Amino acid sequence: MSDLRTSNLKKPVDVAEYLFARLHQIGIRSIHGLPGDYNLISLDYLPKAGLKWVGNCNELNAAYAADGYARVKGIGAIMTTFGVGELSAINGLAGAYSEMVPIVHIVGCPSTISQRNGMLLHHTLGNGDFNVFANMSANISCAVAKLNDPVEIANQIDHALRECYLRSKPVYIMLPTDMVARKVEGARLDEQIDLREPPNDEGKENYVVDVVLKYLHAAKNPVVLVDACAIRHRVLDEVHDFIEKTQLPVFVTPMGKGAINESHPSFGGVYSGNASQPDVKKMVEESDLVLSVGALKSDFNTAGFSYRMSQLNTIDLHSTHCVVRYSEYPGVKMRGVLRKVTDKVDVKQLKVSPPPKAPAIDFKGIDGKSPILQSWFWPHVNTFLKENDIVVTETGTANFGIWDTRFPPGVTALNQTLWGSIGWAVGACQGAALGAKDAEQDRRTILFEGDGSLQLTAQEISTMIRHKLNIILFVICNDGYTIERFIHGMEAEYNDIVEWKYKDLPTVFGGTDDTARKYVVKTKDELEALLTDKDFNERKGMRFVELYMPKEDAPRSLQLTAEASAKNNAKAE
Amino acid sequence: MSDLRTSNLKKPVDVAEYLFARLHQIGIRSIHGLPGDYNLISLDYLPKAGLKWVGNCNELNAAYAADGYARVKGIGAIMTTFGVGELSAINGLAGAYSEMVPIVHIVGCPSTISQRNGMLLHHTLGNGDFNVFANMSANISCAVAKLNDPVEIANQIDHALRECYLRSKPVYIMLPTDMVARKVEGARLDEQIDLREPPNDEGKENYVVDVVLKYLHAAKNPVVLVDACAIRHRVLDEVHDFIEKTQLPVFVTPMGKGAINESHPSFGGVYSGNASQPDVKKMVEESDLVLSVGALKSDFNTAGFSYRMSQLNTIDLHSTHCVVRYSEYPGVKMRGVLRKVTDKVDVKQLKVSPPPKAPAIDFKGIDGKSPILQSWFWPHVNTFLKENDIVVTETGTANFGIWDTRFPPGVTALNQTLWGSIGWAVGACQGAALGAKDAEQDRRTILFEGDGSLQLTAQEISTMIRHKLNIILFVICNDGYTIERFIHGMEAEYNDIVEWKYKDLPTVFGGTDDTARKYVVKTKDELEALLTDKDFNERKGMRFVELYMPKEDAPRSLQLTAEASAKNNAKAE
Ligand SMILES: Cc1ncc(C[n+]2csc(CCOP(=O)(O)OP(=O)(O)O)c2C)c(N)n1
Ligand SMILES: Cc1ncc(C[n+]2csc(CCOP(=O)(O)OP(=O)(O)O)c2C)c(N)n1
Ligand SMILES: [Mg+2]
Ligand SMILES: [Mg+2]
Repeated sequence: MSDLRTSNLKKPVDVAEYLFARLHQIGIRSIHGLPGDYNLISLDYLPKAGLKWVGNCNELNAAYAADGYARVKGIGAIMTTFGVGELSAINGLAGAYSEMVPIVHIVGCPSTISQRNGMLLHHTLGNGDFNVFANMSANISCAVAKLNDPVEIANQIDHALRECYLRSKPVYIMLPTDMVARKVEGARLDEQIDLREPPNDEGKENYVVDVVLKYLHAAKNPVVLVDACAIRHRVLDEVHDFIEKTQLPVFVTPMGKGAINESHPSFGGVYSGNASQPDVKKMVEESDLVLSVGALKSDFNTAGFSYRMSQLNTIDLHSTHCVVRYSEYPGVKMRGVLRKVTDKVDVKQLKVSPPPKAPAIDFKGIDGKSPILQSWFWPHVNTFLKENDIVVTETGTANFGIWDTRFPPGVTALNQTLWGSIGWAVGACQGAALGAKDAEQDRRTILFEGDGSLQLTAQEISTMIRHKLNIILFVICNDGYTIERFIHGMEAEYNDIVEWKYKDLPTVFGGTDDTARKYVVKTKDELEALLTDKDFNERKGMRFVELYMPKEDAPRSLQLTAEASAKNNAKAE
Repeated sequence: MSDLRTSNLKKPVDVAEYLFARLHQIGIRSIHGLPGDYNLISLDYLPKAGLKWVGNCNELNAAYAADGYARVKGIGAIMTTFGVGELSAINGLAGAYSEMVPIVHIVGCPSTISQRNGMLLHHTLGNGDFNVFANMSANISCAVAKLNDPVEIANQIDHALRECYLRSKPVYIMLPTDMVARKVEGARLDEQIDLREPPNDEGKENYVVDVVLKYLHAAKNPVVLVDACAIRHRVLDEVHDFIEKTQLPVFVTPMGKGAINESHPSFGGVYSGNASQPDVKKMVEESDLVLSVGALKSDFNTAGFSYRMSQLNTIDLHSTHCVVRYSEYPGVKMRGVLRKVTDKVDVKQLKVSPPPKAPAIDFKGIDGKSPILQSWFWPHVNTFLKENDIVVTETGTANFGIWDTRFPPGVTALNQTLWGSIGWAVGACQGAALGAKDAEQDRRTILFEGDGSLQLTAQEISTMIRHKLNIILFVICNDGYTIERFIHGMEAEYNDIVEWKYKDLPTVFGGTDDTARKYVVKTKDELEALLTDKDFNERKGMRFVELYMPKEDAPRSLQLTAEASAKNNAKAE
């Protein structure tokens, strides 16, 4: 430990202390993960840094949770142990990479001495290769930092955290056991890491702004379409200010849900090609100028690539570049453009059309004893949601159904439409609820989960209970993988699952009637009674609802997307 | 689909049909995994090929199960969907790579057309890279086959399966949706894949055999030490014949447990350096010739690298080479050498010492009401085990405790001492029990599982029940991560877990009192009553036992290994 160079340090601090202090500075208050002998010693440093240890049930769930946490709190962290822990988590981190969610993944690994000596340690492949897992993670990380030399470490950490936040992707940090207590310069901590996005080249930016304004002022029926990257790259303030000033009709994509206040008079609904409501489809596709902010045109976000609009009528604003019709502006980031367009737009020149009205839904005709159908459940959820709720939906019927739910103001919506790893939503819900708690926000987190998906990650309910999180969990009990049935194999055995006693899960996982209350709803009347029940709405802790729906019932948007997907899978030359 | 080349095929069969027929030929009867839209169509081919679909709860568990299946049935298979499924499984496959277990991993992936067009599909990173996951898996696979061209496919499949079996490691097969129904030559199926190990060069082999015999005949107190690679590379018949003929004292390492009939008069016990029983340690370390078969000297298999024997007294037989003292013989594989040494050894020249006696254990002094201690539990388990039981132990106290259990003949022991991923044993137990069932063997599978580890993969209990597997599951309830406590943080909160109602798990997961019976034991008397209960021993289906042990109690061998591990982690320059 005695290092000549240490004596030059103004305020020597241990590596683990430095790392955790930085995590705290950038907004992290809880670390997800599991212990393992290669990270145990560093865990001792957490309390001093003001960080909580979550203690998940397994690493994949922990990664999903760190993802949900980051989506609510801004950035998340997970700590795993070498090999076994990190690889268990890797699918969760790949999802964060795909969906652009900033997660710091810290892997406790064997000492640099053991590594150099190629020792045959547990959690290795037995081939002396200590870099193989880092190489695997490099594919799904925007930076990799191997903390092997104290002289480099503080720099490596600062660089990795900055990349993580700015590029909104996971980073991978490898922390060897013998580095945990080595000394680095603590004086650096007096200055925060600079997380500001570097501004655009001013000349280029002004040029793009002028072009955008020209088309905007000339357009006959311009609309705005907000997608995932607007959320992930944190330009929602800019978007809101633009909408507020222009009052232009604004739509969101499925992945963009939650980006816009859905009770705002300019809000027009969810656009997703063929699967949109007819008047939404008409307005967007007939518009002569779609200002598209942060588009992410994946198959499930576009109902199977069914957008019908011309690039000639499109302005695309992205986090790394802009495109106006066919003119590309690499390096010009949307934030600055949006800000200036808002400042300079001449509202008198704008033609502002009224957005389509929310479809009128009438539930009164439905027999109170009838089973709960997807087609009316989702529009009905409106009435139950409250301002600032966090709504998490799982890949499956829920992810499509939620298109039809109009959110109250302030709702944050979490979904994983591009990566689509089932089980994600359970972990993400835990992380999201904890993120809200850590932010000292009094919000409910509401999860709509499939029965099939729940089975992948069910144990994380125990972590929700452990941390007394404020969660309402609806399990859609529809006898298995309904989304898959609509793609292929409606009756196939491989789309069936074991029938669990879902509502007994919280009790097995340590909940009591007080900390985790259970409910079953099978009919319209039961559902309405529950959704309007004061105690159900207002009590704290977990509320676990078995929500029965027919096996062969799916939202219309899912049916259309599934058909497109099946066709694409079957396509042959 | 119309391919000129197809018309040249003698017996055209679909790719999926070919692949599954091959899996059946090499001994696979059940495929583990989860469906996903990129593999749904291929799943339709399973029944026709005589293969069962397991339908696991998640992919990591499925990989663990395929591992357990392979250890019992000879080879295993798992099918996942692109990206999300395969990456969820990757830690389980890395474990199989590390521990040398042959698993065929089939990944249903987007069509070659979608791949070529770089489409923005669900389950991708959104960057058009369709090879990134295969590249990640390449690190933990002994072969990768991307089935993109029908002309190559039959060859690719045969090659991959042969590698998988012979090298006893996972292989990765990528099956695009548009290839599933393409035609390949079915006539090839009339000839089985040749899975025989290529013989050694005869001259070299004879030379090694002579050297081995020379030392063997000259040795004063030779012993045999059998380790993991003897099991994994399938030389147990050769080892047994050698022992039978020579009657030399034979020891196993922790990872070698189960390789030798432990009631054989030549069996001497478990050798693991410092953590061995004193007379075992003495006999092995004082031997002037240790014939070591398939050694795998990892930290946890050697009680922290505490072997004390000289290479001058060692003959090392491996699957790829042999070493006699310091002379190395690359390319000379142990099988042929062992066979010939057995044929040629002159038993009259051998000095055969008697092995140490099994330590006499006396449980009578223990108060019937006293809690169950690790030190006497494990030797006591002897009395309960039956011939041909399969015994699975999880990383934790169980993996070390089992060293002290003497097995009846025919017991197969499964552990993951090198990779050590917790939760593995639950999946592996499901796979092992199914493997025995598929082999039409009437065996019990007995799992000793930690409470902490169970939490990672608990849902797979539901798969055990679904397939009516014959399993006895002991959960060691000791309030958390005891093994970790002994390494670091005896009182640390991060080594605590949520207290689950473990024994209610089978019911939640669909078990009834008939299909999954539950038991609780806290004292010596309760334990003895249970272990001798006829119904408990003989009934079918699941028996789930909550087995209470003190939190700060661990087997002696674990304590010694944990100390060594903690020291190694803390080592600094
Ligand atoms: C990790 C992972 N494994 C497999 C899949 C394939 N998959 C997508 S949706 C789905 C079924 C979801 O079923 P459920 O949660 O019950 O949803 P619902 O019935 O509401 O459609 C499956 C198996 C996946 N997306 N991710
Ligand atoms: C996937 C994975 N995550 C974390 C670890 C680190 N680890 C090793 S043993 C262990 C605790 C096991 O506890 P338990 O199963 O209760 O065993 P016992 O109390 O009998 O020792 C942990 C967390 C690991 N080996 N694998
Ligand atoms: Mg379902
Ligand atoms: Mg335990």
